[in-house]
Amino acid sequence: MKTLTTSALTGAGCLLLGALALTNCQKSALSNDSAISADGEAAKKVYVAPGKHDEYYAYLSGGFNGQVDVYGLPSGRLLKVIPVFSQNPENGYGYNEETKPMLQTSFGQIPWDDLHHPKLSRTNGKPDGRWLFVNGNNTPRIARVDLSTFETAEIIEIPNSAGQHCSPYPTDNNEYVVAGTRFAVPIATDGSGIQDVPLDTYKDKFRASLSFIKVNKESGEMDIDFQILVPGFDFDLANGGKGPSADWMFFTSYNTEKAGTLKEIGASQNDKDYLAAINWKKAAEYARQGKAREIPANYYHNRMDEKTHTAVSTQMKSVRVLLPEDCPGMMYLIPVPKSPHGVDVDPTGENIVVSGKLAAVIPVHSYTKMLEAIKNKSFDKDINGIPVLKYESVLAGEVQKPGLGPLHTEFDNKGNAYTSMFVSSEVVKWNVKSREVLDRIPVYYSIGHLMIPGGDTQNPDGKYLLAMNKITKDRYLPTGPELAQTAQLIDISGDKMKMLLDFPTFGEPHYAQAIKADVVSKNSKKFYRLDENKHPHATTKEADARVERKGNQVHVYMTAIRSHLAPDNIEGIQVGDEVYFHVTNLEQDWDVPHGFAVMGNQNAELLVMPGQTRTLKWVPTKSGVTPFYCTDFCSALHQEMQGYARVSPKGTNTPIKFWLGEKKKPAI
Amino acid sequence: MKTLTTSALTGAGCLLLGALALTNCQKSALSNDSAISADGEAAKKVYVAPGKHDEYYAYLSGGFNGQVDVYGLPSGRLLKVIPVFSQNPENGYGYNEETKPMLQTSFGQIPWDDLHHPKLSRTNGKPDGRWLFVNGNNTPRIARVDLSTFETAEIIEIPNSAGQHCSPYPTDNNEYVVAGTRFAVPIATDGSGIQDVPLDTYKDKFRASLSFIKVNKESGEMDIDFQILVPGFDFDLANGGKGPSADWMFFTSYNTEKAGTLKEIGASQNDKDYLAAINWKKAAEYARQGKAREIPANYYHNRMDEKTHTAVSTQMKSVRVLLPEDCPGMMYLIPVPKSPHGVDVDPTGENIVVSGKLAAVIPVHSYTKMLEAIKNKSFDKDINGIPVLKYESVLAGEVQKPGLGPLHTEFDNKGNAYTSMFVSSEVVKWNVKSREVLDRIPVYYSIGHLMIPGGDTQNPDGKYLLAMNKITKDRYLPTGPELAQTAQLIDISGDKMKMLLDFPTFGEPHYAQAIKADVVSKNSKKFYRLDENKHPHATTKEADARVERKGNQVHVYMTAIRSHLAPDNIEGIQVGDEVYFHVTNLEQDWDVPHGFAVMGNQNAELLVMPGQTRTLKWVPTKSGVTPFYCTDFCSALHQEMQGYARVSPKGTNTPIKFWLGEKKKPAI
Repeated sequence: MKTLTTSALTGAGCLLLGALALTNCQKSALSNDSAISADGEAAKKVYVAPGKHDEYYAYLSGGFNGQVDVYGLPSGRLLKVIPVFSQNPENGYGYNEETKPMLQTSFGQIPWDDLHHPKLSRTNGKPDGRWLFVNGNNTPRIARVDLSTFETAEIIEIPNSAGQHCSPYPTDNNEYVVAGTRFAVPIATDGSGIQDVPLDTYKDKFRASLSFIKVNKESGEMDIDFQILVPGFDFDLANGGKGPSADWMFFTSYNTEKAGTLKEIGASQNDKDYLAAINWKKAAEYARQGKAREIPANYYHNRMDEKTHTAVSTQMKSVRVLLPEDCPGMMYLIPVPKSPHGVDVDPTGENIVVSGKLAAVIPVHSYTKMLEAIKNKSFDKDINGIPVLKYESVLAGEVQKPGLGPLHTEFDNKGNAYTSMFVSSEVVKWNVKSREVLDRIPVYYSIGHLMIPGGDTQNPDGKYLLAMNKITKDRYLPTGPELAQTAQLIDISGDKMKMLLDFPTFGEPHYAQAIKADVVSKNSKKFYRLDENKHPHATTKEADARVERKGNQVHVYMTAIRSHLAPDNIEGIQVGDEVYFHVTNLEQDWDVPHGFAVMGNQNAELLVMPGQTRTLKWVPTKSGVTPFYCTDFCSALHQEMQGYARVSPKGTNTPIKFWLGEKKKPAI
Repeated sequence: MKTLTTSALTGAGCLLLGALALTNCQKSALSNDSAISADGEAAKKVYVAPGKHDEYYAYLSGGFNGQVDVYGLPSGRLLKVIPVFSQNPENGYGYNEETKPMLQTSFGQIPWDDLHHPKLSRTNGKPDGRWLFVNGNNTPRIARVDLSTFETAEIIEIPNSAGQHCSPYPTDNNEYVVAGTRFAVPIATDGSGIQDVPLDTYKDKFRASLSFIKVNKESGEMDIDFQILVPGFDFDLANGGKGPSADWMFFTSYNTEKAGTLKEIGASQNDKDYLAAINWKKAAEYARQGKAREIPANYYHNRMDEKTHTAVSTQMKSVRVLLPEDCPGMMYLIPVPKSPHGVDVDPTGENIVVSGKLAAVIPVHSYTKMLEAIKNKSFDKDINGIPVLKYESVLAGEVQKPGLGPLHTEFDNKGNAYTSMFVSSEVVKWNVKSREVLDRIPVYYSIGHLMIPGGDTQNPDGKYLLAMNKITKDRYLPTGPELAQTAQLIDISGDKMKMLLDFPTFGEPHYAQAIKADVVSKNSKKFYRLDENKHPHATTKEADARVERKGNQVHVYMTAIRSHLAPDNIEGIQVGDEVYFHVTNLEQDWDVPHGFAVMGNQNAELLVMPGQTRTLKWVPTKSGVTPFYCTDFCSALHQEMQGYARVSPKGTNTPIKFWLGEKKKPAI
């Protein structure tokens, strides 16, 4: 069994980064042993005995898998994968007719995205366990997951944007969820969208947009209220003010140099980049007052209808746009160390921590000082009519020698902050008031985000911290060139951090949220009521099961119940027909799904929950008897839950015929 | 926190099954507490401290997710998901150009399957850690996963078949891997495939095939040597003989009644169904002697070329078929209790355990007695020329009162057998020689397969048993109507079984294999050598990065290295072009993949391992500047690893132009 060596760490965790020294990193490696809690003690802390439940739900983004991965903490067990932006062969999401419209965009149906940041909905600045908002970083989209069903309820495309990295950050009561452009693009102000212009016009023509999405208090439904067109920087991360600063939203930006090529070098030329501070209440007021121009925009808003369990995709036609130069007092730029990544506001709402990936210190800006600086017009200059505040006039102070490559900060309930250090592969604990470093613990390797349950809200927990690391290398048994990413659970209840557990993650968790289990579990739905099933093709009684031909479409109205499908024998289908199996699961109990698949179908399967109807499309390419069956082992006679479709050559015109069992006569 | 109650168990684990009593089931629930090992002790047994490695690799089938899920034991951590039969948005398998051919079948490209049984390759009856064979139960296919890379190396379609459930069972030295038809279908004997006949001709015209796939000793490459056309039963599970019985392969079959509809009732009429015993050595001899007829067959054989890392799909034209009536001594039928599921041969090769899902006893057949019965022609009758042996003449004895709903049996290294009981939700331990029940432990809920590392081979382990359960219900925090399946790790090292750990599984694990870690890890590949990259579109030096137009195809020869893509600015692309990004990862270190995605692409992403080339196809639907970027956080300047493609309207005919950084002049 391999053990860690300093040289392994130097190669992996401490990625070369220009001229930065690796001293801290090497120190971390050496201090490893002392930081790990005694095995027996750690084992007991993370062990959840058979039949017992985890204490927290943790929602980790799946990154390039486009999904949300639900883990239990402290066990680190993967409880569920929720497909959001990507097709999911396991349950047919994105393959079945009901969910295909969820993936509709102005580019067509997009079967994949890069899901970065999960954010729980909030009531009075505290996670309320109702919804989870997530962003699609590739084709700009924001989605809402319903935490009573753990299913994707809504996806809204963001026009006038490219990439959505600083998304979807909520305000204290979800008045808005914000979404910002990561890749500056030439956005036309006349509503003609992203332009086809020479790439060397970057400095002049490329710009970014910050979108403010309203959330309905009752239903959670989203709607783009307005966008602010801003300079063409790369907007990276965001965070909402809290309590006193609750009306403000903060965004980091990099490449204020506006380098259009080789950004690796070009985007790190200036000593300072900017934090954008936006007073969203003022912005909303401006929009109400008619300062927003309504311009044409082509984007899709996709919602899962609660009664039919079928997604409805609506093409949207316009969006309201604000320009900062028209709206004084709405937006300011605050200098921050070059190439910043995370911005994190502490639970009091006063301290705004900005992590510059290439910076040697962590600046903490003061909300109070910001207001004063605005009042005193302590400006350096303005950019496109946006005042730039003086760095020192906003700065509360700097955390000295925190480590190398600070990325993200979260907070505990005792006034401490925890910052992830990508380059030196460690988590650094410091006091928010004194900005003194109190403790550090090595993580393996190259940590990105970290997460404390509630640690991004007004009500942080103080028990666990989750480190999400970018490099895995030798942490687990090797699995060839492709490895899982990895998380580490750290006990932060005492003065010193203690390492408890390593667990591999599914996809790349860019961020996570966690919440005490009962806040969510008390509302968890167990199954869908059959008498509430309003799917247009539902078959709620086996006696109504039937097959109907409409031109070249064949609709199979099928029921599934332990242990048979009805009908289970079908004749009269022809090669090239569009066959739609509308399968209704008649069960009315928790955890009795039925699956459905057809041999040789150029599609995935259906996984149908009790009381639900799902539709699988099949276009047979070959004549011959073709079996179908239940794919989810549902009972002792599951293997017998199978049937046949007879496919005849095109043009045979044999009549439709179907039956179930000897007791029923063949029906036509 | 919920606790288990007898009523919860009755509702869930003890699914109603005709008139079977639930007494055992209820008894199990009550004995639960005493069976669970003390928490602290169990915690220590399953805890793998940060930086330490698991003791075993466990390969669990993903069932309806079409993947193999690699877990570490005893921790129960999901180390990796290997896509096999299904598209995988996470790494682009089935979406990128190199792997699309892996999913080719005679029905077209099939993006999904139902993966049931993983089986490790063997040397002298012992798992050798080289390959993992798996079956696609929906569109009949067998795949081979290479355990040096943990990637799917080969998929072969099985003609003349429908469903492949009793697959892919290997012989002691992988001379053959077998694959049997689950859904009887009207197979033509003239090579015209599966026929278009009325479904009520089931009894006369439907039949099954058992395929014998040769495995190349050096490369692992598969090839269908011959098929045996057998009566139209549903062939369910298989198992190879061992040691003395190594020349034989055993298959269970159900629906020997040949009910074509409502099999739930129709397939359980007869008191006995059959175990098929096939002497594969004799069959191979018959095939060699010319008894096999070569008939036309249309199927695909897809292989990942080791040098180009590109799948090659070959259309096959014929297959050799044997008929049992032509081959005396090759095949026998042995009566077994009705509706059998698993057949499992003990490590000595003498005892053949058959589990009848509806049976009250577990019969153990004797290999020695079978040979004697054959010699003595102790036959009941024959079916299609296949002799049916007398039940009693083959029977060694029966395990009495084992529990309800026996499904599968595995063995330890001390002469004990462990049988899963679906209906009474328990694992029952019994002595193979005495057939006496020694111990029982409840499992939650409704166990399907169970697995002991090596427990299906000549060399079983005696430490752990993994129960794979079909119903989850309240075992974990609720996640809405759709729940993960669940596994339970049981300590079998002592006289009494002890429950150690519950962990959710990904997809539905129909079966699993496990192996001591070092047997596999010693051969694990860390990255691909760039100087061995023979991909036809590889770009192994950044200086060779370029863009070429060929008609309406645009080929981008791109390199990726921390932290830039080359080229990173491209002009001259038009709406409707077929753009192929051939991305080569220039890194030469472990665990430095780069990802690649394009905004608005109707495709997934690429995940490119060091030294490898992967190709993403993009057909732009909109004009405008379109960003692309690295999707896998690779370095501190990962966010800067991005570029732009300018898309102009169709017919613009602007010349191709591309560049990287200021240092390079735009090239045409």
